[in-house]
Amino acid sequence: MDQRHPPVPINAQDSKNRPIIALLTDFGLSDGYVGVMKGVIASIAPHTQCIDITHDSAPQNIAEAAWILATSYHYFPRGTIFVCVVDPGVGSSRKAIAVHAGDWLFVGPNNGLFSYVYNEQLVHAAVVLTNAAFHLPQVSTTFHGRDIFAPVAAHLARGTLLDELGLSLDPTTLQHLNIRPPIHHGTNGETHIEGHIAHVDHFGNLITNIPVSMVPHLFTVPAVQAIFPQQSQEKSTLPITRRQHFFAGAAESDSPFIYVDSSGYLAIAVHNGNAAQLLGKCCGATMTLVIREK
Amino acid sequence: MDQRHPPVPINAQDSKNRPIIALLTDFGLSDGYVGVMKGVIASIAPHTQCIDITHDSAPQNIAEAAWILATSYHYFPRGTIFVCVVDPGVGSSRKAIAVHAGDWLFVGPNNGLFSYVYNEQLVHAAVVLTNAAFHLPQVSTTFHGRDIFAPVAAHLARGTLLDELGLSLDPTTLQHLNIRPPIHHGTNGETHIEGHIAHVDHFGNLITNIPVSMVPHLFTVPAVQAIFPQQSQEKSTLPITRRQHFFAGAAESDSPFIYVDSSGYLAIAVHNGNAAQLLGKCCGATMTLVIREK
Amino acid sequence: MDQRHPPVPINAQDSKNRPIIALLTDFGLSDGYVGVMKGVIASIAPHTQCIDITHDSAPQNIAEAAWILATSYHYFPRGTIFVCVVDPGVGSSRKAIAVHAGDWLFVGPNNGLFSYVYNEQLVHAAVVLTNAAFHLPQVSTTFHGRDIFAPVAAHLARGTLLDELGLSLDPTTLQHLNIRPPIHHGTNGETHIEGHIAHVDHFGNLITNIPVSMVPHLFTVPAVQAIFPQQSQEKSTLPITRRQHFFAGAAESDSPFIYVDSSGYLAIAVHNGNAAQLLGKCCGATMTLVIREK
Repeated sequence: MDQRHPPVPINAQDSKNRPIIALLTDFGLSDGYVGVMKGVIASIAPHTQCIDITHDSAPQNIAEAAWILATSYHYFPRGTIFVCVVDPGVGSSRKAIAVHAGDWLFVGPNNGLFSYVYNEQLVHAAVVLTNAAFHLPQVSTTFHGRDIFAPVAAHLARGTLLDELGLSLDPTTLQHLNIRPPIHHGTNGETHIEGHIAHVDHFGNLITNIPVSMVPHLFTVPAVQAIFPQQSQEKSTLPITRRQHFFAGAAESDSPFIYVDSSGYLAIAVHNGNAAQLLGKCCGATMTLVIREK
Repeated sequence: MDQRHPPVPINAQDSKNRPIIALLTDFGLSDGYVGVMKGVIASIAPHTQCIDITHDSAPQNIAEAAWILATSYHYFPRGTIFVCVVDPGVGSSRKAIAVHAGDWLFVGPNNGLFSYVYNEQLVHAAVVLTNAAFHLPQVSTTFHGRDIFAPVAAHLARGTLLDELGLSLDPTTLQHLNIRPPIHHGTNGETHIEGHIAHVDHFGNLITNIPVSMVPHLFTVPAVQAIFPQQSQEKSTLPITRRQHFFAGAAESDSPFIYVDSSGYLAIAVHNGNAAQLLGKCCGATMTLVIREK
Repeated sequence: MDQRHPPVPINAQDSKNRPIIALLTDFGLSDGYVGVMKGVIASIAPHTQCIDITHDSAPQNIAEAAWILATSYHYFPRGTIFVCVVDPGVGSSRKAIAVHAGDWLFVGPNNGLFSYVYNEQLVHAAVVLTNAAFHLPQVSTTFHGRDIFAPVAAHLARGTLLDELGLSLDPTTLQHLNIRPPIHHGTNGETHIEGHIAHVDHFGNLITNIPVSMVPHLFTVPAVQAIFPQQSQEKSTLPITRRQHFFAGAAESDSPFIYVDSSGYLAIAVHNGNAAQLLGKCCGATMTLVIREK
């Protein structure tokens, strides 16, 4: 299939006079960086609605931002333009790109931020943002969010087609993160899934990379254990064996429990508490799920 | 009076083609949770304007969020739809509700978040959100903000009437917080008001639950004292006796002073400083105001 | 030239039915303060688009907020109304003002917040906000952001002219911060520039007040040194001599380097690190740049 020619080009018409640009960066909210990007967008495409996904993604952590995007983008309307800027390579030879994947458009650096999108959606087309006519007149070496990505997204919101933004890019050359999938192996009556913590949310919930589809009988098998390997220097953590359908179900106890988070991944929480703090775990920590099926 | 049939149903027409959804949650801004709710709203009701009240309400602290809502909602236009999600009981048997009170609509869990609104406004109607046609197709057990409250609010913004969202709920069964009102007792020439800190704001100002209407002569009586009872383990705090009309009036000193906050409640501040840190007090701390009238 | 009569009054027509109000405050995002301002704006001027510059400017730090505004405002469309509230003098005799400068309108306290704007733009007109018809009916002594600045901005967005808001103010009486410009002095082949840290951003980058136009040959002269004077109590800091065009260029090392930030000022960063923490420097710290030209 020729992925370069989408059957229906996505443009401003899709969101009926009110195009949406969704923003995800690691810029924080204490500087004027995000506001300036919105000022640039409003200058070019005044009828655009900007929606913040987050700007407090961990600085320069491409993997975490990619995860947040992965669990968010499919809740946005068809035609939404995502501007994602976690970009430690800004100014270097890393390419600035725009990608039409699934029903959405993605604008940002070609550094793996869109890895989950590429895995889940058909990539119809991708371009390198070489056409300076769609950038600000002066492009800095350190703030392409303002100088390239925001104006390009605003022009897309006005109806500019992907092809006009620059040279076509072979989708097979798009940068992918080295995403470690969970490893699943079973022995007589016992299944082991080796996963890791993909995200720690605002509440301190530890969200793993193990989709519930890998453990369809989570709540009915005789026993499960979530085991964190002991690190040197660290006090050992007891296996977590409680399972809860929702947070309040654990109200009678403050021990950690396993649940299915709202994006369909296994996660660890503490009722009215912070599991990340209690267990001393953060993003990237490995975890083994042991499932005893009889 | 029959509170279930409002004289004029509130719907999208009230805000003249630009309905407003105001959001108040404890989700923080470092995940994609809030952005996803806005993506859902934009998918259903693209012409809606979303306004954030706050998303950094203390996690799972219903009382604090209720206070912030109480001091905010009446500044929003008639017909504004408030989506409030501080919801430790998500997924349990606690009900999801929508309430028409005063000139506004309120959507969220039935856990007391709207207590001050019920106290201050006429509740015209309330419903339990039982009609799944207005929810997302898949409803998780942990994120009703995305799956129920945001889509319901968006449908209200499109003109859906409250009645269509689910079964009518007797307003007398709405959940109220146990709000401790200030206790007022006078003896010869001296009045004592027992209150507490209802909110600590971003500047560390300690805002009490004592309305200035209880102390109409605050600035003219001979003397007032704000007294924090000494806790064990704690250094004692001197009574606060200074009164100021505004912050800069206290510029010549860094001792704490009593003022009337912008919502009409007595509060304690320090000029260019943080009263909460200086006094070691937080939300819930009891405080006695002693007023010497002659 | 008579600055009081701008050749073309700026009003809502300039942004074609979608006026923009850009907000910059030190209110933080954990209270309802910012949301309430937007509620007030939506009540008066429902078709306005609000854009946040930041609300996490350091509490009561006028100089920092002035800097953030200085590096932001010219990216917003002509006719944007800036509401800036870092206002330790709220309630005192400090004046509330609105200023038409360059192609924009600025609303806030007359305390120096707009100093850089005055330096860079022609001030066409300024007024004191004495006309209470454009304020909320009740004006508190501590929250003019809600009671005066937001409603005034909303009325400007609806097309109210500056003249209607209050008494004309002689632009020469506008409050200016005491901004220390960098001092430049050269001796045989060596130039010294005495500057200071004007802003520390979210990434810990130290942004100085030295514009690159003062050091046009930064990347081609034989050597430069950024020197922080040693404070008592402090470990000495080695001179910084590395120069980088962009962050990734420094990937092979974690020592600090000099670069040109996106607003055109010299700055100090550490690759994938936090220069402010590493060097123990914050806003206001003096720094000398030594340039050896041969």
